[in-house]
Amino acid sequence: MIYLDNSATTKPYKEVLDSYITVSSEYFGNPSSLHGLGMQAEKLLTQAREQVAKLLSVKPNEIYFTSGGTESNNIAIKGAALLNKKRGRHLITTSVEHASVRAVMEQLEQDGFDITYLPVNRQGRVSVEDVKKAIRKDTILISIMHVNNEVGTIQPILEIGEMLKEYPSILFHVDAVQAVGKVPLAIHRNRIDLCSISGHKFHGLKGTGALFIQEGVKLAPLFSGGNQERTIRSGTENVAGAVAMAKALRMTLMKSEAGITKMKTIQSMLRTGLTNIEQVTIHTPEENAAPHILNISLKGLKSEVLIHALEQEEIFVSTTSACSSKKKSPSGTLLAMGVPEEKADSAIRISLSFENTPEEAQAAVEAIDKAAKHIRKVMK
Amino acid sequence: MIYLDNSATTKPYKEVLDSYITVSSEYFGNPSSLHGLGMQAEKLLTQAREQVAKLLSVKPNEIYFTSGGTESNNIAIKGAALLNKKRGRHLITTSVEHASVRAVMEQLEQDGFDITYLPVNRQGRVSVEDVKKAIRKDTILISIMHVNNEVGTIQPILEIGEMLKEYPSILFHVDAVQAVGKVPLAIHRNRIDLCSISGHKFHGLKGTGALFIQEGVKLAPLFSGGNQERTIRSGTENVAGAVAMAKALRMTLMKSEAGITKMKTIQSMLRTGLTNIEQVTIHTPEENAAPHILNISLKGLKSEVLIHALEQEEIFVSTTSACSSKKKSPSGTLLAMGVPEEKADSAIRISLSFENTPEEAQAAVEAIDKAAKHIRKVMK
Repeated sequence: MIYLDNSATTKPYKEVLDSYITVSSEYFGNPSSLHGLGMQAEKLLTQAREQVAKLLSVKPNEIYFTSGGTESNNIAIKGAALLNKKRGRHLITTSVEHASVRAVMEQLEQDGFDITYLPVNRQGRVSVEDVKKAIRKDTILISIMHVNNEVGTIQPILEIGEMLKEYPSILFHVDAVQAVGKVPLAIHRNRIDLCSISGHKFHGLKGTGALFIQEGVKLAPLFSGGNQERTIRSGTENVAGAVAMAKALRMTLMKSEAGITKMKTIQSMLRTGLTNIEQVTIHTPEENAAPHILNISLKGLKSEVLIHALEQEEIFVSTTSACSSKKKSPSGTLLAMGVPEEKADSAIRISLSFENTPEEAQAAVEAIDKAAKHIRKVMK
Repeated sequence: MIYLDNSATTKPYKEVLDSYITVSSEYFGNPSSLHGLGMQAEKLLTQAREQVAKLLSVKPNEIYFTSGGTESNNIAIKGAALLNKKRGRHLITTSVEHASVRAVMEQLEQDGFDITYLPVNRQGRVSVEDVKKAIRKDTILISIMHVNNEVGTIQPILEIGEMLKEYPSILFHVDAVQAVGKVPLAIHRNRIDLCSISGHKFHGLKGTGALFIQEGVKLAPLFSGGNQERTIRSGTENVAGAVAMAKALRMTLMKSEAGITKMKTIQSMLRTGLTNIEQVTIHTPEENAAPHILNISLKGLKSEVLIHALEQEEIFVSTTSACSSKKKSPSGTLLAMGVPEEKADSAIRISLSFENTPEEAQAAVEAIDKAAKHIRKVMK
């Protein structure tokens, strides 16, 4: 099996699962319980929080555990919008965000908020100037992803953060779900107030995530209850999940330097190899792109047909983002980049992890070439 | 170790963890991915949903996976309130609900909803007549727990459901988190529209839960995004968690008949044994109480002091509910039952699972007796 759908989800590291099992079976107390078993669980949770904070170069009291990236994005944006609505009702985002940001914005729009969806250029990149121009007196939050999940474009987070230093009252949320381990993430240096990560995107477990909330920033919680996670996220803490995510993050960041180099090599091999296939378009830009995603179109070949053909060779790639794949509508990011609908309809996303090899890339290129030739021959 | 804090959380069954590991490592695809790995994961999720539905005698499309009891309660109540607010803004609940219902109601109150908190009698029970009298033309939802988490009182869910048949437009939510496996749960027969359960309360894993939503009932979602769980709960599904919860539910319900009999025996032993200790008050009623909870006060002994004394003997019990234990305020349920504050301050909750033994109960009684004598002697 050659798994090239790592932006949808990754295989958990064995060590991550081992940690999960140990905590679940041996330290199963409820961290809210006052006795020793509860305190053991709370200690593990505290350690996981400290570890995640250290790895992200932030403070432990700035890390809040959630059930995943979607929840983190929802808490960050809705929580900020609801708490600050008296101050202003304008939010700025881009037209290429993940569904869990896009749909939140649309819901807020229905609730009377005003949303600016900024365009992107042909490389899928938003311009800092456009962000600045969109700012109004009633702007309360700007939400921009770090790495696009469909084509891999890196947004100018550092530059936007720099520019936003002039606007201290505007909250800056960054969806870093696709960035962790692939692109250096400097939360404080980039003047980020809110930052979402998801465990299962870096070999952690599904159902785990975290939200960075800068010290002093207040949010309205989505869940009310026992006031866990310092009132931001009520509900018995998933201690084993948090410990497992901390471990996945540590392993990922430890491997990151070598992993990025390796992925860049593989990405480059894919790019070179695929360019030789007839009527191919590579959507992922050569500059300002993450090393783990390559999005391509093969003219006339519907994405789904190609995906299923590759599956016959035990090669797994995806159409657009997993969260949007069942809608069967073409990639929103590609359309926003100005890619014609017909071409967007035939886009496939190849997404890597540190575990992929150059041999797998070679096999994928050959399989795509073979499948394209075969399908085109049949279609004639 | 004698673990008697099963209402706070339970130790996961080994088989449950085994299922979790198998799914996480071998079927790690994203259920939203269109390829085979995604389809495998989706199939497992569908099977888990069918299994949970069958075990609860409801339809698969009435089961929605969540991250736990708190999330289920929040989605049910806020989701119903927000969607129906044009029809009415009155909700009815009791004064003895879990924090994840109570706090949701308080939040809705701040948002302009009108909440009736019904009193309970000395046994902690709400009266069907009171529920009926509280109903107004603008009542949209009634939320009443099945089993109280602090004293174990069973609410008259069946009778309330019967009565509510006259009011088809009022939604009936039941927090059944403490009921699963301990008290028969007849969702459809009890005319329940919404019902919350939590995996880690029946030897499943933390971070897993489900919400039953009766076919046809609509809710406003809390999370927006990729529209997973038929738009009610966006976010990559925790497939392994759902499979693990289905397994925990199956094992729990299979063991339930024998387990309830066993817990009743142990509860009765505890009751008899503890009654012999000086100045003890047993708060858990003899009638209409679940078999797994016994709440007692020892006059003059602060709960925390007793808990830590028992911990020296490797016996783990709790003060009030885990979710409220750190507030250090006396049990809300006991106060609502008319227990004086001083007595409520010395309450401890002993909570059982099927795995406890009569020998453990005997040891607990002896340890409580010994600790009480010792502390009282020191205090003199």
